[in-house]
Amino acid sequence: MRLVRYALDGRAGAGFLEAGPDGDVVRAPGTGRVLARLEEVRLLAPCEPRTIVCVGSNYGCQVAEKGRPHPVEPALFLKAPNAVIGPEESILHPAEVHRLEYEGELAVVIGRTAREIPEDDALSYVQGLTCANDVTADDWRADGQWTRAKSADTFCPLGPWIETDLGDRGAGGRTLSTELGERTVQRSDTGRMIFSVPEILAHVTRWITLRPGDVVLTGSPAGVGPMVPGDRVTVEIDGLGRLANPVAARAGTGSQVLGDRVS
Amino acid sequence: MRLVRYALDGRAGAGFLEAGPDGDVVRAPGTGRVLARLEEVRLLAPCEPRTIVCVGSNYGCQVAEKGRPHPVEPALFLKAPNAVIGPEESILHPAEVHRLEYEGELAVVIGRTAREIPEDDALSYVQGLTCANDVTADDWRADGQWTRAKSADTFCPLGPWIETDLGDRGAGGRTLSTELGERTVQRSDTGRMIFSVPEILAHVTRWITLRPGDVVLTGSPAGVGPMVPGDRVTVEIDGLGRLANPVAARAGTGSQVLGDRVS
Repeated sequence: MRLVRYALDGRAGAGFLEAGPDGDVVRAPGTGRVLARLEEVRLLAPCEPRTIVCVGSNYGCQVAEKGRPHPVEPALFLKAPNAVIGPEESILHPAEVHRLEYEGELAVVIGRTAREIPEDDALSYVQGLTCANDVTADDWRADGQWTRAKSADTFCPLGPWIETDLGDRGAGGRTLSTELGERTVQRSDTGRMIFSVPEILAHVTRWITLRPGDVVLTGSPAGVGPMVPGDRVTVEIDGLGRLANPVAARAGTGSQVLGDRVS
Repeated sequence: MRLVRYALDGRAGAGFLEAGPDGDVVRAPGTGRVLARLEEVRLLAPCEPRTIVCVGSNYGCQVAEKGRPHPVEPALFLKAPNAVIGPEESILHPAEVHRLEYEGELAVVIGRTAREIPEDDALSYVQGLTCANDVTADDWRADGQWTRAKSADTFCPLGPWIETDLGDRGAGGRTLSTELGERTVQRSDTGRMIFSVPEILAHVTRWITLRPGDVVLTGSPAGVGPMVPGDRVTVEIDGLGRLANPVAARAGTGSQVLGDRVS
């Protein structure tokens, strides 16, 4: 089942997507009644996480590319909820940032309260999977803690929907690719993670209790690179759809600073 | 006005505290009707933040004590919402952690959506002030990103209430002290912050939009130190009350690991 949140006529709603004779429709969770045609709604981020835990350095190809040591346990960091946006919302590029990077990732959405869960039962705590872009201001990593680097507004696109049917392969064995415009810039398989989704969930929830709607990002493969205003970046995962976002300059303070710098 | 959230007979409620002839009472926000006597409720954390931004190295005495460089801008990190607990809830000490530290801090609670706010108007975005304990697992700082170190469950006690009347002194000029048992271990004044609350809010909201109920922790003075199960730690700030929490061993996986280690 593909769970969505959407906006229509200025109101937010939730439902599930289903193919209809004239294209996909959004149906009500309880009754199945048709709420809207997909083409007439604007999809929102499919969940509203409070806690977003992310894993870095989780693909061998990316670890090798960056010259980082092979991790002995999942390397965790946080993104803050203000960063979440939905499909087609603009990723805002702060003018102060010289290198803003896309990182296509598999996102795991929690379905029930998960505290100290065992690895072999971890997937039963998962509501479903979606696509994420772990947007990163590379120059702000120098802060030490990656707070601005990872959690500035719009730095966590999620969507387009939550696929609840994991099938036989679970979270693994899915092609993950990122496109910058027409060009494919990342391509790997979620089965190639160094730490699997169950391993990550068991590790995180040993100390950090996750609640329904919380999200775990599982790391990005090789090919992470810069994007600039005017770009369009798309993360696609086999069976989970395509998450596309344009990149725009952040207005306000940021542009004033840029104005000062270039004048 | 002192805003509280509380539990009574298994239900959560919200109101404000006021002195009555027989002790403090909780009154309803709208009508002022008495909801309960303070002594019969259990106070909860006074807000439910989604985003918690913290400032490190914000008191000269603490920077000197730690031998850190004097910061040129606020050093930001995050705590995740799963870490929040209220007064008298137990801070859980993971068995794997050798040094768990208290850090008494002033907490600023946001009252309206704050995005790129100017420093000279920053306090108008504040709902009020409360006490916080920025509990830190010192050995987990070695992770690089301080995710487990700062955001394990129970690592963010808040309370006992939100004082909305800032008076003439605003967020500054308040004595802040931390007691471990009967012993005063930290004592400073919130007016001695390197970056003031308005400076911090202007800096953070340049990139991170804060919403009502979100919290900013403003750093801890010198005297940070360890606490162990059985301890009781109290953060007191002039005009904002006392936030007291016992420290207990975390059961579950953690205690099994401890069992392995000590056997």
